[in-house]
Amino acid sequence: MDFCISNRMKDMRGSAIREIFKYAANPEVISLAGGNPAPELFPADALADLAYRFLKEEPVLSLQYGITEGYMPLRQYIKERLARVENICREGDDTIVVSGAQQGIELLTKVLVNEGDTVIVEEPSFIGATNAFRSYGAHLVGVPVKEDGMDVEWLEKALQDNKNVKFIYTIPTFQNPTGTTMSLEKRKSVYALAKKYGVLILEDNPYGDLSFSGERFPTIKSMDTEGIVAYSGSFSKVLAPGLRIGFLTAPAALIQKIVVAKQISDVHTPMLTQLISHAYLTENDLEEDIVKTRANYAHKSQTMIQAMEAYFPKDVRFIRPLGGLFIWCDLGHGIDTLALSKKAVEEKIVFVPGNTFMVDMDTVCSTLRLNFSTASDEKITEGIRRLGVVFNKVLA
Amino acid sequence: MDFCISNRMKDMRGSAIREIFKYAANPEVISLAGGNPAPELFPADALADLAYRFLKEEPVLSLQYGITEGYMPLRQYIKERLARVENICREGDDTIVVSGAQQGIELLTKVLVNEGDTVIVEEPSFIGATNAFRSYGAHLVGVPVKEDGMDVEWLEKALQDNKNVKFIYTIPTFQNPTGTTMSLEKRKSVYALAKKYGVLILEDNPYGDLSFSGERFPTIKSMDTEGIVAYSGSFSKVLAPGLRIGFLTAPAALIQKIVVAKQISDVHTPMLTQLISHAYLTENDLEEDIVKTRANYAHKSQTMIQAMEAYFPKDVRFIRPLGGLFIWCDLGHGIDTLALSKKAVEEKIVFVPGNTFMVDMDTVCSTLRLNFSTASDEKITEGIRRLGVVFNKVLA
Repeated sequence: MDFCISNRMKDMRGSAIREIFKYAANPEVISLAGGNPAPELFPADALADLAYRFLKEEPVLSLQYGITEGYMPLRQYIKERLARVENICREGDDTIVVSGAQQGIELLTKVLVNEGDTVIVEEPSFIGATNAFRSYGAHLVGVPVKEDGMDVEWLEKALQDNKNVKFIYTIPTFQNPTGTTMSLEKRKSVYALAKKYGVLILEDNPYGDLSFSGERFPTIKSMDTEGIVAYSGSFSKVLAPGLRIGFLTAPAALIQKIVVAKQISDVHTPMLTQLISHAYLTENDLEEDIVKTRANYAHKSQTMIQAMEAYFPKDVRFIRPLGGLFIWCDLGHGIDTLALSKKAVEEKIVFVPGNTFMVDMDTVCSTLRLNFSTASDEKITEGIRRLGVVFNKVLA
Repeated sequence: MDFCISNRMKDMRGSAIREIFKYAANPEVISLAGGNPAPELFPADALADLAYRFLKEEPVLSLQYGITEGYMPLRQYIKERLARVENICREGDDTIVVSGAQQGIELLTKVLVNEGDTVIVEEPSFIGATNAFRSYGAHLVGVPVKEDGMDVEWLEKALQDNKNVKFIYTIPTFQNPTGTTMSLEKRKSVYALAKKYGVLILEDNPYGDLSFSGERFPTIKSMDTEGIVAYSGSFSKVLAPGLRIGFLTAPAALIQKIVVAKQISDVHTPMLTQLISHAYLTENDLEEDIVKTRANYAHKSQTMIQAMEAYFPKDVRFIRPLGGLFIWCDLGHGIDTLALSKKAVEEKIVFVPGNTFMVDMDTVCSTLRLNFSTASDEKITEGIRRLGVVFNKVLA
């Protein structure tokens, strides 16, 4: 039988990162490709005790159907922490627990985007989000990312030139894949432009807690007096990603529709993972955990940068991140990093080529993304050494 | 800001069952509305030990990102059990773990249905599925359900009269909401018609294990020599629904696209719930558990039927189920059970009115669905007594 795939999905490719992961399964291969948090930081022992406690003491709550909006005390905790840490507490907003921030992005798109509608994205941007937009037939318009965030003039032109712009998607803090942080001035400008053109902003902030210095960058959502910002967050990077606990905060009318969409999608996020996440977050000091995570990632990024300075050809430019998980490199010279990624596999090192993050994934890119959060110090250094060998061959 | 909701979602209403649940939160109210499995059957103690063990001994596996297809040993277990118990083992098929069977249905729809395409459904049918189809702009065509399954002549007419039929959705065994079981002859006819018209069948079988007598009814998927049946299943009714573990088995080409769609939706089903489900299923005898569940539900359905015979007016007709969770009643006399459901709340009893399950939910229906799996014997009897009071008033 020839399955006639829907228009929205027929050209969808799986993330190239998934393909790269196949090579990474070989233990001799060093992967700097993923975006996995450091597994040594997972509070597994505490979660073991909590899972045991809930299943023993609250078996029905842990195992019966739950409500679509999410476990109420967890929603309450999320609202309180957003108010306390991010100054996000707009009246008239609501918060839904989702199965990872990815689900919030997908559901928002399902609820808002008709085929052919425009979504403005930073370019390069997170492929999980851009693929969600593509999967509903969105017309993606890219706005280049500078070291201080997206090009605001370009953004205004995109808002002027395109009809039916449904939202602007941005990761202002420690952006994926570039690691850049949007300046305060630009955050204000992006908000002002959204207001001027009557367009929603989807602010995705999975990395905001991971500032190396501890400095917090004001979210665009914290400036949202008009109710024009949807804010997506996650516990994947500060607790554990396998639990799949994220959230979306947005004007209540939008959350109501997203609840309907989530009910159709997975009914609700599993109860056990919500319960143990909530208990861990309220019985422990998350901010103290985050201090440790920050120190770990600051150290690992420094290890990677030192190795890059030692092993990479001088022509390779890169952006020093202030936090997050990634370092963005540019080899220049018209080098095609997609082709290079295949050569790198021969040297047992994998990375994500820059084209993955572009609106047009067939663009030839000299850029690539490196991750420093997953590998050990030794593997980071050895991985960068191997990459240096690959780069030296093409730049010689 | 006036959010312009997408065409596919703008007319979507939340399930009426959700609204009814609000009343059910009052402890004085008896709910026969939900579809919750009996909580006393959840193997909570065993799952507590397993959750503790995995988080202690396999912290990284339990908490790090997993792969979209699902935990490989769980997929393997599902394939083996389907082959052993249901004779489902077609070469060229593949199986994906999904976050509840609901997600498999939603993703299949996303992958196949363009706006305006037809999906043929039993009428009445499961609202979670019909809403998933609606949410992608499907044109729903209903085929009446008889006591021995859907009307096959009507089905053929629907296949002839409608263009772009993407699939036939059916719950052949202990159907939701009618509790009916399709005859073997009709199963063969439905398969033959799907083959003749080149249309996929989506066979949803969440209740197949819950036969009161232990008899198994051959699935349509077990007859699938051509690769034209997608089969959706769940551990919600035999293990625990809050874990959100379901699966979809279908031709590999279709599963490949569904993997892409799931990656965008929730990346993967949480690892911890997959791990403890797999360990429970392989370290215990699920078939023995199911014997207990069957006995429990056979007893509860009998309790409900006895109460109905004692308290309901003689005019109320109902279908005696051979398994599953539901009894379908018809009051006749042009009675509107949606209006009646509001009066029933005053008597502190809730049920789901029949219009909920119709293609056109504004149809006035004299039917309603009762659930016997959730409430205790005492509450079932008292609930039916209260319903008898309500029914006697309108039928007097």
